[in-house]
Amino acid sequence: MFEAAELGRSMSKAEYDAAVPALQTKLLELQRQLRAASFPVFVIVSGVEGAGKSEVVNRLHEWLDARGLRTVSFFDETDEMRERPAAWRFWREHPPRGTIGVFFGSWYTRPIVDHVYERIDEDAFERAMARITATEAMLVADGALIVKLWFHLSRKTQKKLAGHPRKATKSTWKVTPLARRYAKRTDVFRGVSERAIQRTDAPHAPWHVVEAEDRRYRDFTAATILCEALERRLAGPKPAVKPPAPAPAPPIRAERGQTVLDRVDLAARVEDDDYRRRLDALQRRVFELAWMAHGRGVSSLVLFEGWDAAGKGGAIRRLTSALDARLFRVVPIAAPTDEERAQHYLWRFWRHLPRAGNWAIYDRSWYGRVLVERVEGFAPEADWSRAYAEINDFEAQLTEHGIALTKVWLHIDKREQLRRFREREKTAWKAHKITAEDWRNREKWPAYAQAVHEMVVRTSTPGAPWTLVAGNDKRVARLQVLEAVADHLERSLDARGGRKRK
Amino acid sequence: MFEAAELGRSMSKAEYDAAVPALQTKLLELQRQLRAASFPVFVIVSGVEGAGKSEVVNRLHEWLDARGLRTVSFFDETDEMRERPAAWRFWREHPPRGTIGVFFGSWYTRPIVDHVYERIDEDAFERAMARITATEAMLVADGALIVKLWFHLSRKTQKKLAGHPRKATKSTWKVTPLARRYAKRTDVFRGVSERAIQRTDAPHAPWHVVEAEDRRYRDFTAATILCEALERRLAGPKPAVKPPAPAPAPPIRAERGQTVLDRVDLAARVEDDDYRRRLDALQRRVFELAWMAHGRGVSSLVLFEGWDAAGKGGAIRRLTSALDARLFRVVPIAAPTDEERAQHYLWRFWRHLPRAGNWAIYDRSWYGRVLVERVEGFAPEADWSRAYAEINDFEAQLTEHGIALTKVWLHIDKREQLRRFREREKTAWKAHKITAEDWRNREKWPAYAQAVHEMVVRTSTPGAPWTLVAGNDKRVARLQVLEAVADHLERSLDARGGRKRK
Repeated sequence: MFEAAELGRSMSKAEYDAAVPALQTKLLELQRQLRAASFPVFVIVSGVEGAGKSEVVNRLHEWLDARGLRTVSFFDETDEMRERPAAWRFWREHPPRGTIGVFFGSWYTRPIVDHVYERIDEDAFERAMARITATEAMLVADGALIVKLWFHLSRKTQKKLAGHPRKATKSTWKVTPLARRYAKRTDVFRGVSERAIQRTDAPHAPWHVVEAEDRRYRDFTAATILCEALERRLAGPKPAVKPPAPAPAPPIRAERGQTVLDRVDLAARVEDDDYRRRLDALQRRVFELAWMAHGRGVSSLVLFEGWDAAGKGGAIRRLTSALDARLFRVVPIAAPTDEERAQHYLWRFWRHLPRAGNWAIYDRSWYGRVLVERVEGFAPEADWSRAYAEINDFEAQLTEHGIALTKVWLHIDKREQLRRFREREKTAWKAHKITAEDWRNREKWPAYAQAVHEMVVRTSTPGAPWTLVAGNDKRVARLQVLEAVADHLERSLDARGGRKRK
Repeated sequence: MFEAAELGRSMSKAEYDAAVPALQTKLLELQRQLRAASFPVFVIVSGVEGAGKSEVVNRLHEWLDARGLRTVSFFDETDEMRERPAAWRFWREHPPRGTIGVFFGSWYTRPIVDHVYERIDEDAFERAMARITATEAMLVADGALIVKLWFHLSRKTQKKLAGHPRKATKSTWKVTPLARRYAKRTDVFRGVSERAIQRTDAPHAPWHVVEAEDRRYRDFTAATILCEALERRLAGPKPAVKPPAPAPAPPIRAERGQTVLDRVDLAARVEDDDYRRRLDALQRRVFELAWMAHGRGVSSLVLFEGWDAAGKGGAIRRLTSALDARLFRVVPIAAPTDEERAQHYLWRFWRHLPRAGNWAIYDRSWYGRVLVERVEGFAPEADWSRAYAEINDFEAQLTEHGIALTKVWLHIDKREQLRRFREREKTAWKAHKITAEDWRNREKWPAYAQAVHEMVVRTSTPGAPWTLVAGNDKRVARLQVLEAVADHLERSLDARGGRKRK
């Protein structure tokens, strides 16, 4: 494949000088248009070490406006990164809509290097490529433009870099020690890179292999590719994402109006004494597991969804009062901030992922996408129907990292909700909890029930099942929540086995 | 001092049960009012280990609405924190306006513990207290409400905790190993803590020492203090900050219209050949220093201010093209996002501080406070006149951490600006750079010159001097910028000496 990028292409100084001003004018104009557009641009800068990626990036900075352009580089890993799923470090640097993010070192770097140095095997490498493909498809489906550049050098040039670590002269002073080290494995890198490119080349996120022997040709070509991609994307609609992006499945309808919620035993009750005894035992169990998990660096993520007035707040408090306050954080999900709106909807959840051994408790969650956004029509059907697969993939990344994920739906019936609304209106310090919106949501009960049904069916996975909690008796609900949390955490600790946090 | 908190105060269950509902109602009501108010609340939770701080925090979570309440705990330090000035970890967790941030473990924890274990001496401890005082004064002057709670236990109770590490029973299962360890130094902790409290007790940010022997009394008292403080702050204007907050000094006026800018030699010119030779040499020097700094973990921060069309963009590009793109980040300062607006104006600059060995290049900066915000009247005089001292303190924290800070004012005269405006209007790809706002700013030249004069005089400190660059000849300007950057970095490297990044 790389042979096509070993044709010895170059650009004379005269050609270059003549062509650059027009290219720059165009880039600046496109960047201006981009500002008003509502999608982000990812420029993935990859390729062999020594090909001058750093110079290309600098050139882009020279030609483009610094506003709305940001380069992020991903080399060494900090402990804050290691404590979270691998993708976290990329999510935190996603460019906001209307801007360009140059990814220098990207989600490709680690799998390729790890495979070259045999730290991961074939299977792990293929899985990494499949995940990248899914992630890119998800970003493009959300509107993103992904421009993937691979800078190539011939074997001959690479060997030269490896063999002759010359003293710094004007033409070589940017050859880094890394380039010399990597160049010693030129052939292995070549094979692995070729496979990475083949596996992840897709019409909606194609690779561009750029011949990097000649600086002028290299820089001009890279900028031209960006220019053309921007132009196309600004002119047309966002590209259709063909599989491997999961095609939205036909909607799942509750049969004869029967939803999974009907299976919840709302008649369950618990006696006072029994409640206190069991609550105490469960809280202690959670407390002990939490410290054990902290010691082993296992994080917990508990998310609460449920009908209005189903008792989320109370259940969360029974959980947090079993935890040391330095270990958890409650993340209430309300309207997104403008920084959040400028990102993919999952971004705001990635950003709050807890550090190793800590807890994040989401009061409402990413499931808003397939609940309120669906029912209220905030997200078009194409978006929310795609979300099930996106969410499953997101959660798989959490659980694969060893995070204990508990997903709770707090269920009550319509009559109980009415009783609680009325009661709240009567109680001074609870009155603020009932708004006109709550009454409006209540009118849409059947639509929500349908949405919940489909959500549970589609996103209950072995690693991240839903727990449907019987909420008509608040105390029953609290016990069920604590039990689910403890069970999930215990299972994650078992799975992790003896591995200790250093 | 702590004797006043050893009176054996307690609260019966009956009293407690009778009083809590009213307190909670009030807290929720105040929290609702707070949401509409435009100030943040810091609740500092400190005190002896074993006093039940974690339980108090849990109680607050039980009584308050989770929305607009967030507990952040500061215990172990990650490498991302160590790579930045100590205050960074707190800044990144500041509560947005209208919300409550519970700081569990706070800026007090580290200095107290370090002094108890003799890792820092008297002087360092006193300096830490002085810095805390200044920081708190700054936050309060910006509107913040700071509620500082110290939970106290008598010597007797503490010794008991230390001496009898009982098996977990219902009443002790939350006594952490840390509590037992610290309790062995009870007396030293007591002395150091007492001094910390005395040094940092101020009318605008007073300490409240809470007797923590009786759980009900402790929790109820803590919540009552918060309640009263919120009530007072919501009812009245923000409190006046008495010294130690630096009193705004009388304005510095340029004498007979002569400003520091008049001393810049705008007639300086450079010949083509000379320029190329010197540019090349300087870029190489910066390149080499940058890698050396990267190796030693010394960060650089370069900020650019200057007249419109003074050539900031070009100067920045000459600097960045001497840097490896994986080491720097250009931060253009435009209108703040809503997340930034919800914070102290310095927050958005703290958040972008580079990791060890990296660069942040600010295209405009925190000096906007005393330039555009002053001249355009966006900030009232009380705010911008206080900003000089706040900025000096901020920059001192950067330079004390070993960061090389270069501050550049790009100077041109009014005629040269006009020439460039006209030229830009003629050039297609530069036309977007000239807006009506630029012409309006030009009308206010004398007011800006006055503001620049005062800024340079007040904020040129030995550790962070201003470099006034002659910009009429762009090439002269670029050389002067590179030279200043190289000189500052070299000095910081010398100061750091042989210390190596691990």
